[in-house]
Amino acid sequence: MSARGAKAGPMVDVQSMKDERRVPIKKVGVKGVRYPITVLDRANTIQHTTATVNLYVDLPHDFKGTHMSRFIEVFNDHRRDLSMPRFLAMLDELRSSLDAETAYCDLHFSYFIEKTAPVSGQKSMMSYECSYEGSSSGSEREFWVTVQVPVQTVCPCSKAISDYGAHNQRGLVRARVKLGPFFWIEDLVSIVESSASCDVYTLLKRDDEKFVTERAFDRPMFVEDVVREVYTRLLAEGSFPKFSVEAENFESIHNHSAYALVEYDSAANQPG
Amino acid sequence: MSARGAKAGPMVDVQSMKDERRVPIKKVGVKGVRYPITVLDRANTIQHTTATVNLYVDLPHDFKGTHMSRFIEVFNDHRRDLSMPRFLAMLDELRSSLDAETAYCDLHFSYFIEKTAPVSGQKSMMSYECSYEGSSSGSEREFWVTVQVPVQTVCPCSKAISDYGAHNQRGLVRARVKLGPFFWIEDLVSIVESSASCDVYTLLKRDDEKFVTERAFDRPMFVEDVVREVYTRLLAEGSFPKFSVEAENFESIHNHSAYALVEYDSAANQPG
Amino acid sequence: MSARGAKAGPMVDVQSMKDERRVPIKKVGVKGVRYPITVLDRANTIQHTTATVNLYVDLPHDFKGTHMSRFIEVFNDHRRDLSMPRFLAMLDELRSSLDAETAYCDLHFSYFIEKTAPVSGQKSMMSYECSYEGSSSGSEREFWVTVQVPVQTVCPCSKAISDYGAHNQRGLVRARVKLGPFFWIEDLVSIVESSASCDVYTLLKRDDEKFVTERAFDRPMFVEDVVREVYTRLLAEGSFPKFSVEAENFESIHNHSAYALVEYDSAANQPG
Amino acid sequence: MSARGAKAGPMVDVQSMKDERRVPIKKVGVKGVRYPITVLDRANTIQHTTATVNLYVDLPHDFKGTHMSRFIEVFNDHRRDLSMPRFLAMLDELRSSLDAETAYCDLHFSYFIEKTAPVSGQKSMMSYECSYEGSSSGSEREFWVTVQVPVQTVCPCSKAISDYGAHNQRGLVRARVKLGPFFWIEDLVSIVESSASCDVYTLLKRDDEKFVTERAFDRPMFVEDVVREVYTRLLAEGSFPKFSVEAENFESIHNHSAYALVEYDSAANQPG
Repeated sequence: MSARGAKAGPMVDVQSMKDERRVPIKKVGVKGVRYPITVLDRANTIQHTTATVNLYVDLPHDFKGTHMSRFIEVFNDHRRDLSMPRFLAMLDELRSSLDAETAYCDLHFSYFIEKTAPVSGQKSMMSYECSYEGSSSGSEREFWVTVQVPVQTVCPCSKAISDYGAHNQRGLVRARVKLGPFFWIEDLVSIVESSASCDVYTLLKRDDEKFVTERAFDRPMFVEDVVREVYTRLLAEGSFPKFSVEAENFESIHNHSAYALVEYDSAANQPG
Repeated sequence: MSARGAKAGPMVDVQSMKDERRVPIKKVGVKGVRYPITVLDRANTIQHTTATVNLYVDLPHDFKGTHMSRFIEVFNDHRRDLSMPRFLAMLDELRSSLDAETAYCDLHFSYFIEKTAPVSGQKSMMSYECSYEGSSSGSEREFWVTVQVPVQTVCPCSKAISDYGAHNQRGLVRARVKLGPFFWIEDLVSIVESSASCDVYTLLKRDDEKFVTERAFDRPMFVEDVVREVYTRLLAEGSFPKFSVEAENFESIHNHSAYALVEYDSAANQPG
Repeated sequence: MSARGAKAGPMVDVQSMKDERRVPIKKVGVKGVRYPITVLDRANTIQHTTATVNLYVDLPHDFKGTHMSRFIEVFNDHRRDLSMPRFLAMLDELRSSLDAETAYCDLHFSYFIEKTAPVSGQKSMMSYECSYEGSSSGSEREFWVTVQVPVQTVCPCSKAISDYGAHNQRGLVRARVKLGPFFWIEDLVSIVESSASCDVYTLLKRDDEKFVTERAFDRPMFVEDVVREVYTRLLAEGSFPKFSVEAENFESIHNHSAYALVEYDSAANQPG
Repeated sequence: MSARGAKAGPMVDVQSMKDERRVPIKKVGVKGVRYPITVLDRANTIQHTTATVNLYVDLPHDFKGTHMSRFIEVFNDHRRDLSMPRFLAMLDELRSSLDAETAYCDLHFSYFIEKTAPVSGQKSMMSYECSYEGSSSGSEREFWVTVQVPVQTVCPCSKAISDYGAHNQRGLVRARVKLGPFFWIEDLVSIVESSASCDVYTLLKRDDEKFVTERAFDRPMFVEDVVREVYTRLLAEGSFPKFSVEAENFESIHNHSAYALVEYDSAANQPG
């Protein structure tokens, strides 16, 4: 087909042309779209935040291309209600609009929770980077939620071998769970925050600082301990068929991180 | 155990203590270590570059922690020769030093190739972000290489429907291959660069700029086309048991990317 | 003073202790605080978005430290109304709360504007990274606004020397203006978007794609042209006592950027 | 001028055409070029590393554009010897090649120093992000060096008010100095590392960990203390006509940083 010919008549639809290479495409779509969205919030019903969105579908081997603008059209229609059920409905609509077998979305956003300092009771907002990842292919749907929770960790080795003090640092715990029944991001955050040496805060007065220093010092934990604690609590929760937990410590004595990862799959044999 | 007690006698080895939670850890180690390394270079025998390194092992459920310093000791010993065979030897040594079932390493580095402008013949250095990912667990070893190759793409749709011009942009192609027999990074880069509308250069004189503008305009390609071209050529190469190819276009008409992904696994049924 | 002694009585205020080194501190405070905020929006009155905030004050040479928690207290009180006048009021309160000569704030946020595709009329949201930078030191106040606007540029050289086509790419224009009278972010964005080869969109249908391709091809511009266009229009606006304009092209034929910067200061001698 | 006409005869030089807008450009050039370079190293004479480079010149108001390829040609010729004197020679050549009043370069690179653990004596490499910034405009030349040094800080307030423990964290100190006589990056790093609660290491055995934990606990410091210490030592050095020092603590009890900045200018009145 010549481009020249196209310009005389109605516009050619290059994407819908045949492809002969016999290579199916697993995912094709738009990546890195920045958008304002609204998600569910336990304390305030809804929360306005900002997201980075990736939207994909599969493409059979005999089609040349997908229609990129439709991803934005569908997402734009749903951005004001991205509660978990509506997120999956958006994926179904994407699949249908793009005439695809499977539709995928990764949605990364900051989620804010008002937090109360442990002694002074002062309130401030904490930010948690979260993501929804979902796919829909007809009867099969998957939905995963990830929360990244900053925490404090005190090193058990440093505490044990030193005459005083113990090195400690900020860490980041990433819990990624496959959804069974509905649950709140707030609950997932709470499980992680109570599984480290201490949780972190945006606003602490002096009384609070004494409290978190001593609390953390009383509960020294390696990254290994943190992922095991979160694992044990997520397993006890009983609602997640699969999950993984990563902990990364931004070591205060090194210029690199300590890292640990555990994974759970209810379908696999679990050690024990 | 009390930290106080530890301080009187020889130092306690907290990491080697027993853990009762019955949670095995899939990966534990150091992440984000910056290091100078030496890799193989086809033109110059060796190449000095800088890397970001992650090193992990698995940890059985009954041990409290791993010994983080040993990762650095082993890597430091190998940093001057990280050719592919030596990379795997480093993993074996890590496994043995940490007394682990499996050792893992991700090594991310910039790889530089001197490139010649197509008409003027002027030479300059091009940088390609690469990574080695490997694991060793006794008889089983895996080794993957990823190269990220910047390219230019001209949009076939824009060219076909417009009376003149066509939007084009820089794209980034990520080819990740599982290693069979040895091959050169240079060859993988070359396959990708010849599979886009045109390759990109650090240094182009005016004659070169005319050449690459016209060459790209003559070969319009979607992200779908790019991943299919690279797929077809990697398959024809015949040496990679598994691979994936991603293409991302930093669209010049949008503030987001177009993206496509294909995957190949020789063990799976391939469509055809 | 001994730390032990502190624990018996009321808590010691280490920050308020004297410092003998005779080194005044220009800025001290909190950096990288993530917060949900509300700013003014021309179309919708208010806009909810997310910000990264830095808050500083100066510290006289004879004080040991500042009181970090007060920064968060003051900012938290103002986060629901960060219109420009309220932003300066927040700085005044910071200055007073920290007992400082000068208070500073940098506030970085995504600002969203609904944009209409040029032919199809379809609507979608565009994101612009913006920042407020302000300082207050009694009678003197400074307020700067920066907007980062993605655009498309077609290379005039490539178009002139090639038999067909012309390389083009996404660029990013950063306009930073010192505030005189009030103005809307929307107006600043509009000045920049009309000063490039073409503006970019989140959602374009085929008719739109033809339009933007041809429009851009008709208006080839170097980074030098873009910064001069924006400069000329900002100067004509007459309301900004100082400003700078940067343009960066993510070159489609290179793996690096082309860059240009112009600066204007009404107090300096302007060439002409 | 018509692009068509250009194609018949010799290639048109669009950049050299006249511009009528009367807007001089302060900086124009290439940004974000990734290159392998060689710098001076006190222990090993030379060090191979990788850099990100920005190269600019000014452009008089009556020229349409600069010639971007020449920046790469000049830099490519100098990349194997970017010692400080050669860096300035490169700038002079850039100025002359581009026929400019002033040439600028920012060169960002990782610099590696072999470091010895304090008790075990084990050796490993530490990475420090550094930059050279220079300008040359005929008789006037400026040369600035920046080093970013990771350190550990123990909070004096937390230590003073808590019954045991004290929160501590990794911090990053950025010292930027204007060059007088030649000095080694190693010396600048050393000044910073000895000005914090403790320096950080890539490799520490248990004996070392005890040492750094206790040493840090014995020397609690705020960001305010760190910048004042470095300031005092740089001033005592006597060789830097201007400098600034920033310290940023990645607070272990917060999800944001504490930050401080001091500046020195020998030409200004210094407090005292």
